[in-house]
Amino acid sequence: MSERKILTDYVYQIVASLVQNGVEDAVISPGSRSTPLAYAFASTKEMNVYRQVDERSAAFFALGLAKSKAKPVVLLCTSGTAAANYFPAIVEAKYARVPLIVITADRPHELREVGAPQAINQLDLYGKHVKWFAEFPIPDDHSQTLPFIERHVARAVGIANTHPFGPVHMNVPFREPLLIDFRDELPKSTFSARYNSSVTPSTEAMNALSSIIRETKRGIIVIGELALGTHPAYLWSLIRKLKWPVLVESLSNMRGNVPEDCMEYVIATYDALLKSEEFKKRAGCDTVIRFGAQPVSKFLTIFLTEMQPANYVVIDEDPLFRDSSSVSTHSIHASIGSWLEEMEVHSSIEEEYRIFWQSAERIAMKHIQAYSGQEKDEGAFVQYLLEHLPEKSDLFVSNSMPVRDIDTFLLPTKRDIQIFANRGANGIDGVISTAFGFSKGRRDRETYLLIGDLAALHDINAFLLTRYQPCNMTVIVLNNDGGGIFSYLSQATVKEYYEDLFGTPTALQFHDVAHMYGMDYVMMKEFDEREKLFEKSGRPLRLIEIMTNRGENVEAHRRLWQQIHSELKEWLL
Amino acid sequence: MSERKILTDYVYQIVASLVQNGVEDAVISPGSRSTPLAYAFASTKEMNVYRQVDERSAAFFALGLAKSKAKPVVLLCTSGTAAANYFPAIVEAKYARVPLIVITADRPHELREVGAPQAINQLDLYGKHVKWFAEFPIPDDHSQTLPFIERHVARAVGIANTHPFGPVHMNVPFREPLLIDFRDELPKSTFSARYNSSVTPSTEAMNALSSIIRETKRGIIVIGELALGTHPAYLWSLIRKLKWPVLVESLSNMRGNVPEDCMEYVIATYDALLKSEEFKKRAGCDTVIRFGAQPVSKFLTIFLTEMQPANYVVIDEDPLFRDSSSVSTHSIHASIGSWLEEMEVHSSIEEEYRIFWQSAERIAMKHIQAYSGQEKDEGAFVQYLLEHLPEKSDLFVSNSMPVRDIDTFLLPTKRDIQIFANRGANGIDGVISTAFGFSKGRRDRETYLLIGDLAALHDINAFLLTRYQPCNMTVIVLNNDGGGIFSYLSQATVKEYYEDLFGTPTALQFHDVAHMYGMDYVMMKEFDEREKLFEKSGRPLRLIEIMTNRGENVEAHRRLWQQIHSELKEWLL
Repeated sequence: MSERKILTDYVYQIVASLVQNGVEDAVISPGSRSTPLAYAFASTKEMNVYRQVDERSAAFFALGLAKSKAKPVVLLCTSGTAAANYFPAIVEAKYARVPLIVITADRPHELREVGAPQAINQLDLYGKHVKWFAEFPIPDDHSQTLPFIERHVARAVGIANTHPFGPVHMNVPFREPLLIDFRDELPKSTFSARYNSSVTPSTEAMNALSSIIRETKRGIIVIGELALGTHPAYLWSLIRKLKWPVLVESLSNMRGNVPEDCMEYVIATYDALLKSEEFKKRAGCDTVIRFGAQPVSKFLTIFLTEMQPANYVVIDEDPLFRDSSSVSTHSIHASIGSWLEEMEVHSSIEEEYRIFWQSAERIAMKHIQAYSGQEKDEGAFVQYLLEHLPEKSDLFVSNSMPVRDIDTFLLPTKRDIQIFANRGANGIDGVISTAFGFSKGRRDRETYLLIGDLAALHDINAFLLTRYQPCNMTVIVLNNDGGGIFSYLSQATVKEYYEDLFGTPTALQFHDVAHMYGMDYVMMKEFDEREKLFEKSGRPLRLIEIMTNRGENVEAHRRLWQQIHSELKEWLL
Repeated sequence: MSERKILTDYVYQIVASLVQNGVEDAVISPGSRSTPLAYAFASTKEMNVYRQVDERSAAFFALGLAKSKAKPVVLLCTSGTAAANYFPAIVEAKYARVPLIVITADRPHELREVGAPQAINQLDLYGKHVKWFAEFPIPDDHSQTLPFIERHVARAVGIANTHPFGPVHMNVPFREPLLIDFRDELPKSTFSARYNSSVTPSTEAMNALSSIIRETKRGIIVIGELALGTHPAYLWSLIRKLKWPVLVESLSNMRGNVPEDCMEYVIATYDALLKSEEFKKRAGCDTVIRFGAQPVSKFLTIFLTEMQPANYVVIDEDPLFRDSSSVSTHSIHASIGSWLEEMEVHSSIEEEYRIFWQSAERIAMKHIQAYSGQEKDEGAFVQYLLEHLPEKSDLFVSNSMPVRDIDTFLLPTKRDIQIFANRGANGIDGVISTAFGFSKGRRDRETYLLIGDLAALHDINAFLLTRYQPCNMTVIVLNNDGGGIFSYLSQATVKEYYEDLFGTPTALQFHDVAHMYGMDYVMMKEFDEREKLFEKSGRPLRLIEIMTNRGENVEAHRRLWQQIHSELKEWLL
């Protein structure tokens, strides 16, 4: 068989198996060694191909796309440091539990570790940060080769798509010449179907949980960011039956689309409340049931750690369950599913305990709602933004301050507003790229991005994406000229080196970036200009820059917390 | 002992041991967990501290600095994906043999793999791409802790600084609170000195080499990029004794500063010559002695592979010796040193063989020197640039086309022009950052960077560095709107998908970047404007953008090779 036919069969077999296993998107970075696969992806009509030159950004774009579709996305790059640039997004995907199929082209064995160009050791390149690694064979005409790679690709997709979701890595060596014959049809499958399962808890686990619930007088539910594809209906159904206060993080997306009859149980202001020692002392309970990721709120974690509840049940789709407080008492290995509806539940919660949380929530809400009437800092913009976002908006938020501000200012609503962020490792890297990828998977919704100046600069190459495929997004940069979050930490007390090492101001603004990439640009220096946030122009890309001041931001936030604290104190007397 | 004193002693001990072991530079990215070390570095007068927000760029900057000083440079970042962003530069450092001391701050054990923020598995994070990894202990007051870390840091520097040089990684966990007490003086050392050795070949090896040389009638020396800190004098001394044709790559920096009496042996045009089948057939020899990295020239590698010389001796400071042709016959484990002068050498080379190469070199040189008189493409700019670079210039060149063009157009010269590139893994990533780092280590010389548009866009965040420390550089962007190198490859024959996957044009220009970062900006659309390359303004940073055309570049280069080929053919008749 000709070398060219062997190569062609091989790469179309990989693409065919990906398609058969439900993969529909591939993000490709240019490079020579990956040519056979790049051409096979590009010529396959069942596959959407996206392109990005900067592989770091490409990988975050794929992550965002996989997040929004809750489906694995392929990443393809050439050999060498190209592959190393994927690493930050792969680490994020591992901890955020996002399925990625990373395919790195490689040089064949005779060109590895011998000084050949663009050849690095790509075996196990991402170490423990992928769920699975496979070295593929050099294409040949052995009778087992095609059936093997067909099934191995099915395994790869299956592993990425099994709870906890995550990235997998296939390293595929190619010899020159790298050209293939183009084909109109993918090869027929010889493998019929792959069935993946979600994780259902054992009967003992459900019985134990039922019995804990039955015996609980004071209990809270905590809901963090949920696994991709989770239906919140199962949780709302449990909440209706339990009638416990439920501390809902903004990233769980259960602060938006709240069902009418569940609204009364939702507590959104817990971070502000739990900053109050007086409140915290009175809020103790017997039982905590936690779903999803660890919450963003540091004060909630401190509360759980100090309180040491008699029962702290962590329900996690990974047996490596998340609990950074180390006071959990039960771990239930389960994904969120119909078992939550089917489980027998008898709530015996004390009504006063629920009322206690509800009353506190009302106090905090009043001050939060009044915030942008009183303050003109970053928080005021965030609160205004959240109140005025159009129905069916997705708000992607950067780590560091934006995700915390959203968690502070987003109050429960029946509106369809959804919030997303990269909370696997909480980096400020790759945020714009992730948001672009995310927006690509949500074509019927509008995407807004809220990001600080340093995070925006860190991922400025995301805008290169817009040169390769049409993108729609409103990017809101909160420019406080440096690392705003550190102003809230003790590091800020060291005057001599603080600005150099933490403040790290750049004195940069973003109009040149907007101009370079042909984006609409709006600059806001005053809160009075806030209505410009929603002024539409014809262009699909808008960059809104809001100039704020790090010192003022801290002071305004502290005033809010102080106001809430004072009123709580009075109420608790 | 107070927690704060324990922490303070611990971090100053690390810094003190680095200083004692000759480390003088640290590149720091902002972050919270690394606070104790960041403050210790910043407050140590023996340490130069550089800053960069984008860790990917920071790591390449450190790589460049380590390259120019031939000394290990520290990288410090916080926990999480920050550390993953170092990966591309670490991989490059491993293969380019550049000593880096990577220090990642980490969360303590109780916050690892439990869902805590910014906590990822950092143990062995860089896998096989560092020479050594050590997990440091959580600071405590055990009597062995400080003596142990003092010596462990000495080990780290020693390993990075032993042939083959490379990166090492220390992961240092810190518990909160993260503040230290500032000190004016570093702690006294209890460890006196560390002695590292270079690699001297055994007597058998030297005897074998002597005897091969003695018996060789037709032989060539090939010199690629040399290990950091190599003195070319040892090689010139060997060349004088051997009188063999010596194929000298531009990156060996033995095409510049060529001693008068060695000029006649230097062959620089071998890439052009070896494209000619007729020349290649007549150029065969008995013996090849190769020093340094594999050469950039693909045609030289093909020549060596096809020729299968009776003796192909690879002299490499790593027993994992480089030879991507797999026709080497001897490997000598050695660094370049005085043994080359001391070794007994009797050359019996046939004079005709040397004259054959010299004559061919003169033919190729004539056409190369005439190039910018005939052509107006990228190559013409490169040739003009090389002819006019001021004495004591460093030219940092990007991978992909620039490094190849330099190798084509740089002819042997007595002038002090030096050429550098990232040839470990040959990536187009991090090139500007590396050049900035490089320039910081060479204060008495002028740095020029030659780079294509895609590589420049890939590392545009390098300019963020200039907001944190003064930088001087002339950045010359060859803007051919996309991936120019692929036009030379067979991929370019596939019209349907070629531009999408390989050409990847962005239609971007760089004036907005220059404006954003306050750089001088010069745009050149015509070769007639070439004199602007050296027009000085007052600003320390200049960005010169040269608009070229990918198609014309290929055609002009092919014309050159055709001219050389025709004349060679006639001569060889």
